[in-house]
Amino acid sequence: MSKLVPPHGSDKLKPLALEGDSLTAELEKAKLLLKVSCSSREVGDIIMMGIGGFTPLEGFMDNVNWQSVCDNMTMLNGLFWPIPITLSTNSEDIKQGDEVALVNGETDDIIATMVVSEKYSIDKSHECNTVYKTTEMAHPGVVMVMAQGKYNLAGSIKVLSDGNFPKKYGSLYMTPMETRAYFDDKGWNTIAAFQTRNPMHRSHEYLAKIAVEICDGVMIHSVLGGLKDGDIPADVRSEAIAVLIENYFVDNTILQSGYPLDMRYAGPREALLHALFRQNYGCSHLIVGRDHAGVNDYYGPFDAHNIFDVISNDALVIKVLKFDWTFWCYKCGGISSMRTCPHSSEDRVLLSGTEVRKILSENKELPETFSRPEVAKVLQVYYASIKNEDKVEIKLNDHSTK
Amino acid sequence: MSKLVPPHGSDKLKPLALEGDSLTAELEKAKLLLKVSCSSREVGDIIMMGIGGFTPLEGFMDNVNWQSVCDNMTMLNGLFWPIPITLSTNSEDIKQGDEVALVNGETDDIIATMVVSEKYSIDKSHECNTVYKTTEMAHPGVVMVMAQGKYNLAGSIKVLSDGNFPKKYGSLYMTPMETRAYFDDKGWNTIAAFQTRNPMHRSHEYLAKIAVEICDGVMIHSVLGGLKDGDIPADVRSEAIAVLIENYFVDNTILQSGYPLDMRYAGPREALLHALFRQNYGCSHLIVGRDHAGVNDYYGPFDAHNIFDVISNDALVIKVLKFDWTFWCYKCGGISSMRTCPHSSEDRVLLSGTEVRKILSENKELPETFSRPEVAKVLQVYYASIKNEDKVEIKLNDHSTK
Repeated sequence: MSKLVPPHGSDKLKPLALEGDSLTAELEKAKLLLKVSCSSREVGDIIMMGIGGFTPLEGFMDNVNWQSVCDNMTMLNGLFWPIPITLSTNSEDIKQGDEVALVNGETDDIIATMVVSEKYSIDKSHECNTVYKTTEMAHPGVVMVMAQGKYNLAGSIKVLSDGNFPKKYGSLYMTPMETRAYFDDKGWNTIAAFQTRNPMHRSHEYLAKIAVEICDGVMIHSVLGGLKDGDIPADVRSEAIAVLIENYFVDNTILQSGYPLDMRYAGPREALLHALFRQNYGCSHLIVGRDHAGVNDYYGPFDAHNIFDVISNDALVIKVLKFDWTFWCYKCGGISSMRTCPHSSEDRVLLSGTEVRKILSENKELPETFSRPEVAKVLQVYYASIKNEDKVEIKLNDHSTK
Repeated sequence: MSKLVPPHGSDKLKPLALEGDSLTAELEKAKLLLKVSCSSREVGDIIMMGIGGFTPLEGFMDNVNWQSVCDNMTMLNGLFWPIPITLSTNSEDIKQGDEVALVNGETDDIIATMVVSEKYSIDKSHECNTVYKTTEMAHPGVVMVMAQGKYNLAGSIKVLSDGNFPKKYGSLYMTPMETRAYFDDKGWNTIAAFQTRNPMHRSHEYLAKIAVEICDGVMIHSVLGGLKDGDIPADVRSEAIAVLIENYFVDNTILQSGYPLDMRYAGPREALLHALFRQNYGCSHLIVGRDHAGVNDYYGPFDAHNIFDVISNDALVIKVLKFDWTFWCYKCGGISSMRTCPHSSEDRVLLSGTEVRKILSENKELPETFSRPEVAKVLQVYYASIKNEDKVEIKLNDHSTK
């Protein structure tokens, strides 16, 4: 019997995707239904519900649950849930009781059907203030909420698509059922998830290796949904992570995998959601570093640590592994953190993301104290390729002095 | 209110030491009682009971509890206890119901009184086979059992001595009440204990720092009782640990302290006892490395890990942090373990205790990949001082070619 943590609020996963004949029949029926176009974030949420990553949700939240999740991080039935999972529309035609087809707004593919149990309006500022702690439009999560339609639609959904993730990412894309089967097969009972939307440098290796020391295994779990502009694309990132694993990790201690959600950049609330769905993937621990899932300076560096101390003890089974700033320290002679290194800033190598991008875009070497050479090489090749594209563009536009 | 783990099998510590007037009166009375001379191990156990380190024990075990602890690692009342805590004598005069004075066999000081509730004989081989997994006299723990008197004496004790530990070790020696007060004062809720009878090299620093990362604090907890010949004396060891802490740890993350027991070298069973009494000291975790509390090849390198998986879930509140071999790896560029380093033995610096002693006794430098220079220096000074003593001895004995 599996010794993994149970799914969130349920003794088994609840994937909402149909398969086989019922999928074929539902797809046929869906073609005739009124269509609701979904944003990238909504598509990610639908695909996630399809694979059971949002167990035990059965669809999009209604008004009272939206309110309760905003205000108390719990649903009316007492279930812990830190961020509203909602669907919106501007359609005046759709009414309560209608059955609708949910389509990917970018591709027009039908991805789900839903029976509308409620159509309601929300105070978007309230969602932004409670979940994102701001209503500023410089916050990409706020932008997503403010861009929502006038109405939210609640209801149970049947998911009819895998969002093309398996085809696009192959074995890198695993469902919660697949990761659980993988962990069981390896005999892992305790697994730490390492959330990332970036390549892994030595500091990240340090965090992952501490988790390897104290857990049976670590899952490097990458965002495969939407990101901010300027973030490194998923294929480059996963190659950089793969070379790190190949050269610096022990077999059977680590798994690289990805999940279909968009980043919301909700900081502490998103850290809780990250923990919640990693529990569904079978993980016992989530690594939470400085400013987890944050953006700009909207959250304090340890808000995403502290929020785990204020939720009720039985909110989640998964535990959090909290880490401080990490860096190379010459006096320590290795990667250390603010918790383990007593030396001064002059002894430390601390590069910002901006500095790293500058070094790479100038085709210089990342220091070995910051990045493994194998990882640096993958990133150099990628930056060289962008540069070439830039050059082409520059040439076409004849901005030669740029 | 303290958020520390509760003492073992009790909601509060049970120190058996008397204080003030009752101590004075009991000491007076004890002078008139029949004396039982105690071995070094028994003295350590008495002092430990005096400070509440063996909470909730009230004295030495009787025959049925001895049997039950040997066979099932539990006492008759269901309390988990991995190693018999017994007192022995060869005296034919002492009888059940007698009140006796327990004296330190080395100093003749009265250290406790006891009302004898039972006088019984044990099958010493049975204790050795169950607890030490051997009856070979090459095992120092077996030697201790075999050297016991013909009879065991059971009974509640009143402890009348601090074993001179506070005077000898000053603030290094802390009682469970003192460490708990220290942890509360620092606001630490989770504390990992690092058991040691040796100076700490970089590998040990690595283990302690992982614990610093995941707990509020770490207590480096040294044996101040009896050791094997050839082990480094407590004062040298604690100085070597102090320079490591001073130069390589962050303030308010680490405490060096010591406890009064002798080593039994019982490997896995002793690892359980180490965990049990660390819980009394207020620790939430115990670091258990390779061959914890082992001697020669009597135990498999991970027996002391595995035994924590077979005891019942509610045996202990304290949790174990299990670690594999650790070493410097040139390819990793730092200290790693068998769990985190995928490279080969040629890339690693692995020095045995024998090699370290050889380097130091030849007054050579320990490599920086093995030991921090500040630590190495303390050990070099100590080895130079022994060498000088050797030279004096050699001169006196005229063994000049030695």
